[in-house]
Amino acid sequence: MAQHYPQLSAAFSRMLADLQGQAVAVVGHARPDGDCIGSQVAVALALRARGFDVICVNPDPIPRRLLFLTEGMEFLRTDAVLARSEPRAAIFVDCADHARAGERLKAHFPRPAAVIDHHLSNAGYARHNLLDSASAATCEILAGIFLDLGFAIEAQAAKALYTGILTDTGQFRFNSTSRRCFVLAGELVARGASPSEAGYNLYERETAGKMRLLQHFLGTLTLECGGRACIGTLPAGVFETTGACAEDTEGLVDYARCLEGVDVGALIELRADGTVKASLRAKEPAYRMDLVAAEFNGGGHACAAGLSLKAGAAEFYPRLVAAIAARLAAVPAPAV
Amino acid sequence: MAQHYPQLSAAFSRMLADLQGQAVAVVGHARPDGDCIGSQVAVALALRARGFDVICVNPDPIPRRLLFLTEGMEFLRTDAVLARSEPRAAIFVDCADHARAGERLKAHFPRPAAVIDHHLSNAGYARHNLLDSASAATCEILAGIFLDLGFAIEAQAAKALYTGILTDTGQFRFNSTSRRCFVLAGELVARGASPSEAGYNLYERETAGKMRLLQHFLGTLTLECGGRACIGTLPAGVFETTGACAEDTEGLVDYARCLEGVDVGALIELRADGTVKASLRAKEPAYRMDLVAAEFNGGGHACAAGLSLKAGAAEFYPRLVAAIAARLAAVPAPAV
Repeated sequence: MAQHYPQLSAAFSRMLADLQGQAVAVVGHARPDGDCIGSQVAVALALRARGFDVICVNPDPIPRRLLFLTEGMEFLRTDAVLARSEPRAAIFVDCADHARAGERLKAHFPRPAAVIDHHLSNAGYARHNLLDSASAATCEILAGIFLDLGFAIEAQAAKALYTGILTDTGQFRFNSTSRRCFVLAGELVARGASPSEAGYNLYERETAGKMRLLQHFLGTLTLECGGRACIGTLPAGVFETTGACAEDTEGLVDYARCLEGVDVGALIELRADGTVKASLRAKEPAYRMDLVAAEFNGGGHACAAGLSLKAGAAEFYPRLVAAIAARLAAVPAPAV
Repeated sequence: MAQHYPQLSAAFSRMLADLQGQAVAVVGHARPDGDCIGSQVAVALALRARGFDVICVNPDPIPRRLLFLTEGMEFLRTDAVLARSEPRAAIFVDCADHARAGERLKAHFPRPAAVIDHHLSNAGYARHNLLDSASAATCEILAGIFLDLGFAIEAQAAKALYTGILTDTGQFRFNSTSRRCFVLAGELVARGASPSEAGYNLYERETAGKMRLLQHFLGTLTLECGGRACIGTLPAGVFETTGACAEDTEGLVDYARCLEGVDVGALIELRADGTVKASLRAKEPAYRMDLVAAEFNGGGHACAAGLSLKAGAAEFYPRLVAAIAARLAAVPAPAV
């Protein structure tokens, strides 16, 4: 059968040979998502099966929804790793740039042994740079490599890899969802991944607070730019009044984006400390949300970007609307 | 390569031979969903490519979200078909029983040439009964058969079949989501199905009214049965106040079900004519929502059932809670 990633699979083998005899840390990024944790679990298990001493490291806690993937794995936080004096080679996964693992882990691992990632903006900052921006998820790359190399993929690794593909394709919905995503998902299901288990853990364990937060957010949705943008706002203190937590804001912006006729959805989050955070989502990459975010020193992808700055709501809102309007005006109207 | 459905593929070939020279109607069920419309489009296109005169028939209109599948196809309503005196052989698709196409189409086609379906309760009511309850979707069966038989699957058919698999697996999340679902989805993407196009049409064309309806519904969510059931209510007149329509209630019940600790979610819809409608969803088939619905002369599947009766809200609500509580008590607590 044709290989999924002939070049990256060869590169993975070279990386393994290079790491022989070394202890390894598999490093994920800040605010880890399914693709990050899934990649860490899968790489750590593959290394462990080959005799490596391996730990996983994250600057932020593992989200509650993803804990079903990490049973029996050694996941440590930055402090714990820095407190250990042992030398470890580092494999960064799903980290678009070196600093996304946090400045302290970046400083602790100034030249990682390897980085495995699918982000377009990843310029490569390791000795072995296993990068493919045509892939929807880092877990997609890893699943393809493991199959190419004939690795046994046990159920825990299959679940982890499946979760990364599931979440980074937006449940098999983003433009990036390719035939290969489905082929690999099928192989992972054959090896023990459970679509219903992943769906349950990721999407059917909501809290009452999250539902109240969503209800509040829906009440603030406002159409702008002649109906082509939809913006919702979470005021400061909304977590206290709804009983939700910061993690619960994930996915809210999709409710702003999903309206008929809306090309861009945005969530504005006002913090008590005078910080404004915004998440931007476009239906089409042509709208370049990364450029809108960059105007406020933020960044991200063409369809999904974010920013954070010191500003008052009254001042920020019209500036954001103007920035989105300018981007919409810069792109010819879609054919749809 | 091994065949996906060796027996059903042979049966499909026999059906085609049997229909040679006849005009055909591909019949769908009431309140058609993605699997119904997708199956009709795919079967009609396959027959058309083989020289058949073919139309599609439904007792209810095609939902707005599914119109992207039916371009250039002849979809008729019951009246239009009954008004024509021409004889047609009927292929029923995704119709669990003969009457799900409506009593008038049942009477018009008293002995269908064929039925192709995946519902467990389908006992077979046609000359050719192509049934497989181990499949997540009728479109899954059809995609497998077409690949087995070496049919060319053009882009429109691929999109239709993909949509049926997508919707009837709950976006690849239900228990029924098998390796085969992913393998077939991959083959359909290779033939022109677009996951992002399907996702856009199905899930990103919401109305402001739907958002207001959701907001209202979330505000009514109430935990019952010690937190194991969650019930939301839509009062009579809610469509007028929110600007939503009856179609917009689809999916609302999932917000009741998706709470952590909740095993059963329910939506109660009160109508101005004194009718109560309820949708029931369970996280596990063990809770047998079909049995709860049956107590009110409703029916459905183990995880998804519905009912409709003349009753007042004040009287119905406690009866429903009691019926759910009895089912929860009848099942040992889940291991999760």
